[in-house]
Amino acid sequence: MSLVHRLTLGDVLGEHRRSRPLGTAVVDGDLRLTWPELDARVNRLAGALAADGVTAGARVLWLGRNSFRVLELLLACSRLGAIFCPANWRQTADELAHVLTDLAPAVVVWEESEAVEKARGQVTPDARWVESGEEYESWAAAAEPTDPDADVSPDSPVLALYTGAFDGRPHAALLSDSALVAHSMALLHIRQMEDGFTFLACGPLFHVGTMMFTLATFQLGGTIVVTPAFEPAEVCRLIERERVTQAFLFGPMIDALVQANKDRAYDLSSLRFVSHSPEWDEMITVDDSPWCASGMGGYGQTEVGGMLTFLGLGMGGRGTAGRPSPLTQVRILDASGAEVPPGEVGEICARGGSVFCGYWNRPELNAAKTAGGWHHTGDLGRREPDGTITFIGPKLRMIKSANENIYPAEVERALKTHPAIADAAVIGVPDERFGQSPKAIVVLKDGASATPEEIVEHVRTEIASYKKPRYVEFADEIPKRGFTPDYDALDERYGGGAYPGS
Amino acid sequence: MSLVHRLTLGDVLGEHRRSRPLGTAVVDGDLRLTWPELDARVNRLAGALAADGVTAGARVLWLGRNSFRVLELLLACSRLGAIFCPANWRQTADELAHVLTDLAPAVVVWEESEAVEKARGQVTPDARWVESGEEYESWAAAAEPTDPDADVSPDSPVLALYTGAFDGRPHAALLSDSALVAHSMALLHIRQMEDGFTFLACGPLFHVGTMMFTLATFQLGGTIVVTPAFEPAEVCRLIERERVTQAFLFGPMIDALVQANKDRAYDLSSLRFVSHSPEWDEMITVDDSPWCASGMGGYGQTEVGGMLTFLGLGMGGRGTAGRPSPLTQVRILDASGAEVPPGEVGEICARGGSVFCGYWNRPELNAAKTAGGWHHTGDLGRREPDGTITFIGPKLRMIKSANENIYPAEVERALKTHPAIADAAVIGVPDERFGQSPKAIVVLKDGASATPEEIVEHVRTEIASYKKPRYVEFADEIPKRGFTPDYDALDERYGGGAYPGS
Repeated sequence: MSLVHRLTLGDVLGEHRRSRPLGTAVVDGDLRLTWPELDARVNRLAGALAADGVTAGARVLWLGRNSFRVLELLLACSRLGAIFCPANWRQTADELAHVLTDLAPAVVVWEESEAVEKARGQVTPDARWVESGEEYESWAAAAEPTDPDADVSPDSPVLALYTGAFDGRPHAALLSDSALVAHSMALLHIRQMEDGFTFLACGPLFHVGTMMFTLATFQLGGTIVVTPAFEPAEVCRLIERERVTQAFLFGPMIDALVQANKDRAYDLSSLRFVSHSPEWDEMITVDDSPWCASGMGGYGQTEVGGMLTFLGLGMGGRGTAGRPSPLTQVRILDASGAEVPPGEVGEICARGGSVFCGYWNRPELNAAKTAGGWHHTGDLGRREPDGTITFIGPKLRMIKSANENIYPAEVERALKTHPAIADAAVIGVPDERFGQSPKAIVVLKDGASATPEEIVEHVRTEIASYKKPRYVEFADEIPKRGFTPDYDALDERYGGGAYPGS
Repeated sequence: MSLVHRLTLGDVLGEHRRSRPLGTAVVDGDLRLTWPELDARVNRLAGALAADGVTAGARVLWLGRNSFRVLELLLACSRLGAIFCPANWRQTADELAHVLTDLAPAVVVWEESEAVEKARGQVTPDARWVESGEEYESWAAAAEPTDPDADVSPDSPVLALYTGAFDGRPHAALLSDSALVAHSMALLHIRQMEDGFTFLACGPLFHVGTMMFTLATFQLGGTIVVTPAFEPAEVCRLIERERVTQAFLFGPMIDALVQANKDRAYDLSSLRFVSHSPEWDEMITVDDSPWCASGMGGYGQTEVGGMLTFLGLGMGGRGTAGRPSPLTQVRILDASGAEVPPGEVGEICARGGSVFCGYWNRPELNAAKTAGGWHHTGDLGRREPDGTITFIGPKLRMIKSANENIYPAEVERALKTHPAIADAAVIGVPDERFGQSPKAIVVLKDGASATPEEIVEHVRTEIASYKKPRYVEFADEIPKRGFTPDYDALDERYGGGAYPGS
């Protein structure tokens, strides 16, 4: 990319310094920084990082709670062409040690915690460790500012977010400046973010859900308010004091705010957000942007910078996930990489500006994830006849029966629409004739009953006949790994095996 | 750029075919095309172009009125990596011959016109000429469809728009798929374009003003209604029939619509647009997006894909042009390439995704326009203390007096704020001591009077003293070239000369 077309996060900051000299960039506790102040801090910080060996491609790790320093470290890394990773501080020492070993950061900025100290003891001490707080401040203040216009590529990774332990250990998804800028543009559009937008980052900044709105607010030149954790009364206080436009909030968090503000001690009317309950709707301003009006619906994952599809682009449509962001393409592909027709389930695959650059240090996985020039999300979806997209569930594994592909998540979805079924999982069992046959493990609702025949017949009316379970077995519970069935445990217990490729 | 990050206009079309199978893509007279229909036509059209020698980098020229074929030719060129140019059909034969010679197109699609036929006779007949209409239809229908997923770069030029005859002959500004997509994202954001947006292209598609909203509507998957020219009653009819959201309209065109609809024969309420007059505001729905609420204010030029700054991003600020699009950076630079401080006038320079790739066939000019990695717009501007930008006027030329740079447009602006002055132009006259001195040519308003001393004193209160005219001469009119003073004629008549670099 030629310089004349470049736009890195550091460039955006350089523009805001000029375009918004009086604007508040970040608020964190008593600290308030204007854009020029943030820009000056970032240049000094980049100098401190560079002095500690952070060159293009080097990693900088953050182990701490939410802080404005997460943003300034990211921006300093952008100016250096380096990679910044804010990691989950609440992991166990072993998990943290995995991150330290995997990422091999040149600099670690950390908040004191027992687990972090223990993890530090487990790894070779190559990194420079800087404690967030006074040490960090004096370290950055002593540095020579760097050139804010150094030659870096906007297409190289700048942000690493650990995600998706689908094979047992988390991977760091690498997002470039270009990808983050592209994703921010999609949010500015769908959320109809306007001048003066103020975002309260009250969710974890190591998660793409909070990070993506932080970055969209940054892109716009709005104000980012940071709070270490979700404390309902403090969140109410901050919304009122900073005239917050949007915060990182979901159902139970909203209920907690309604509870914390039940005597209407706080004025939350600046918040333009999703309708939730009569009490909530009275406290805030219900927003009519496609993002809010659709209940923040869509499909996303860290690997696409956040959201890939938006329900706000397909409201009234049949698909539960709406349509792709204007900067992406989606294809529903089968295991051979061919596109499946509308109505059939396949893997959700994507192309576009906001797609990640792969996982850190996972070349084989990356090659598989980008087969045919399409990012394979690992999730199943379906195009509806109106072109909207329905998210089915994680792909995880595939059953091969008489040469047909059967995805457990799709059959499970069909099983769970049966009124008597509380939970269900589907595995493949060896079959001499067909290779494998699908077997359903079913948990009935309390007091409900259904025969295996009724259940199979129900599935047959929901999806293609060849996908119906050949066997149904009843159980008291489905063992889980996170939110998904623990298929390995199920295979062991109920005779699964003979999976394709296994 | 890796395939997994690619997004060309052809890719966007491929996505819309899947995401909006039932959506209307274009309406032109009696013709209506769904997205799958447009996609199929574009693939056949690309095949026809390829069969006539249109390979990557080749040019395809459109000489005709507005037509849906402008859009499909652009999309076919995107799929081939070729360059499409819709040119002004109403130019003289000589001007058209310049375009034909300069662009050397492989294919010309044309509507019958005397000037076009005459121009065709003046140039060597290398191109394949296809008459828009039946010949075009049978030519495209007979072709084999191309691969919609061919390997093309989104960063190579796809659209050429002739513009800016600042040195006497127009240049074709080349815009890439990436630049057009980036610019569309800015419009989707600022205009708050939503699902179902319908744009009426009633301005010329060879002009960036109409093209940019046509492309933003395309990016969104809205509906593009094309009409050959601005006919007030027909525009009213189309707005009502197609439930148009926005049309290409400016002041006098709006007045003409109000007049055409004075008996309220047409329901224009679907139009969400700029407030203009009480009658107009009653007919339409006044839109509150930053684009419409700011009166479509900002600064732009073809070379940045349309708009570089938006007043909607700086409403209430001092600058008349607002702030840069979220995908661009702006610097106000002096003649040496150094940034000038806020409050001082310099050249508006830019970087970012929507900046063009240079002019076709003008390597020396392109090198000068991108000096220091910044696109030099050729226009003067100023950062206000609040960071917003004011557009001053075209740079055109510079006066050098005692080593100080003086831009005529800035002095002219100051002169025109004098209550007695109707028009003014500033030239540099040779000065033994200072090299040059500024001289003002002033046209007074009818019946008004002012002395040279009063005028000089007025300018001194408006801008830095060294910029004030040393001489004032009165005239009956300022000779013009288009909208700007004809400086060559003024120099000759009033003794200008000794310009730096001359």
